[in-house]
Amino acid sequence: MQGLGNSYIYVDGFKENIPNEESLPNLATEVANLHTGIGSDGLILILPSNLADVRMRVFNSDGSEAKNCGNGLRCVSKYVFEHQYVEHKHFSIETLGGIVESLVHLDEDGAASEVTVDMGVPRLKRKDVPMHGEGDELEEHVIDATEHIDGVDYTFTAVSMGNPHAVFFVDSVGEASVETVGPLVEQAALFPEGTNVEFISIKNGTEIDFAVWERGSGMTQACGTGACAAVIAAVLNKKVKKDEAIVVHLSGGDLTIRWSSKDDHVWMKGPAVTVCTGTYMIDG
Amino acid sequence: MQGLGNSYIYVDGFKENIPNEESLPNLATEVANLHTGIGSDGLILILPSNLADVRMRVFNSDGSEAKNCGNGLRCVSKYVFEHQYVEHKHFSIETLGGIVESLVHLDEDGAASEVTVDMGVPRLKRKDVPMHGEGDELEEHVIDATEHIDGVDYTFTAVSMGNPHAVFFVDSVGEASVETVGPLVEQAALFPEGTNVEFISIKNGTEIDFAVWERGSGMTQACGTGACAAVIAAVLNKKVKKDEAIVVHLSGGDLTIRWSSKDDHVWMKGPAVTVCTGTYMIDG
Repeated sequence: MQGLGNSYIYVDGFKENIPNEESLPNLATEVANLHTGIGSDGLILILPSNLADVRMRVFNSDGSEAKNCGNGLRCVSKYVFEHQYVEHKHFSIETLGGIVESLVHLDEDGAASEVTVDMGVPRLKRKDVPMHGEGDELEEHVIDATEHIDGVDYTFTAVSMGNPHAVFFVDSVGEASVETVGPLVEQAALFPEGTNVEFISIKNGTEIDFAVWERGSGMTQACGTGACAAVIAAVLNKKVKKDEAIVVHLSGGDLTIRWSSKDDHVWMKGPAVTVCTGTYMIDG
Repeated sequence: MQGLGNSYIYVDGFKENIPNEESLPNLATEVANLHTGIGSDGLILILPSNLADVRMRVFNSDGSEAKNCGNGLRCVSKYVFEHQYVEHKHFSIETLGGIVESLVHLDEDGAASEVTVDMGVPRLKRKDVPMHGEGDELEEHVIDATEHIDGVDYTFTAVSMGNPHAVFFVDSVGEASVETVGPLVEQAALFPEGTNVEFISIKNGTEIDFAVWERGSGMTQACGTGACAAVIAAVLNKKVKKDEAIVVHLSGGDLTIRWSSKDDHVWMKGPAVTVCTGTYMIDG
């Protein structure tokens, strides 16, 4: 299944025997290989849960386990709803990063083609992004702030969605220097863990154009947490309103993001697509 | 299925309805997409034939139809033998480039894990590679020849296996300047259709180390016609013997190549691996 071009191999742990814990990292690397495996961004296990309605485990193509994955949550949601592993359109998913709420939307054919997932509460303090700083500065928000990187001044808004984001407002996303400024900011000493870098322009009160330089991945078609960070930065800079559903145009497709003032959670709505189903033979 | 990391989606036209002719190029591009499709180097149809035992059609990921594909022939051979679409281990396959002989080798479990395929007769005349030249020169072979490219002298042997190859002998494949010399030679005006560029070193009378810069693809894990060209160049330069089975070590694995003096055909033996089987839904 894929969401905005983010493609994983999903294994149904309700039906299939899941291989040993120790073999999962290698298995993820193996199936993700475009040449000798199926080809994907990694492996996602759909499992029963003791804590929530279902459980999701995400293994990246390098074998590491991810805390969460917005595109993965949408696809898992589509799958468990269509296979009737959950009774209602609204249910909960256990992830390594915590329990997440999910809501499935049915199209006219009754298919779960879109899903809204809870992306949690953004953290805005400088120390939580994280960014280096001195004393009280570490407790402050980084909104429309000017920082020196390699002797040059850059103005951006910083947001943590569990991972760091530096959001730049630009006149035109198509003309933004994503491939030059992106890696420069990503690797700046200012960000002890590196950062994702977003380039956004406000089309109107409900639409944002978006490009991203992903930490460790470079220019990608979509970044769910980046789209959330873009909307949060736009709200903090008073360019769009909190509680408004904002459509973010990514090169892989559209996501609709809403930052709720009720509980401060960010909700993300987007597509989930089944590409193919089949059998992968372990050990040939 | 894949052979030495060259991975295609194979459709069984003996069982499945094949979509309209006009939709095949788009379908190949769609399934080959790593993000929104299954992810592969293209699409291969396994079909009944009026002229041979079976028929193979190869669509590249850009939608173009290929005349032939050595790795594809091995995988098709494995499939039709294991599905009993052919009665014997030795059979013929119709391709856009002509009819090709194939021989399946069974491992101890009775699986068709290796296949030998006929790669045809190499063409050695300068005009057939093709390379530019003057008058009678065009009828001559290009063996251990020194040519000027951008003012520098390069010494290589040129072979056509249906596609052009320039084979360089090097002391150590690991230290060869594949990524600098490769594109320079590939795009030299000397080759009107461009060329694949091979860097090989003779380990002994039956083994060759091999690296390739593939025309249009750059450094790849394996190139079947390139491995054939390597052995032909080694024979022409009297470094290995004709009729000898020569193991070519590619970064994706080993191929065994034999240039037969009986009929001048080149035979290639190598692995064929089933990765997974499944259902791809056209139009969602």
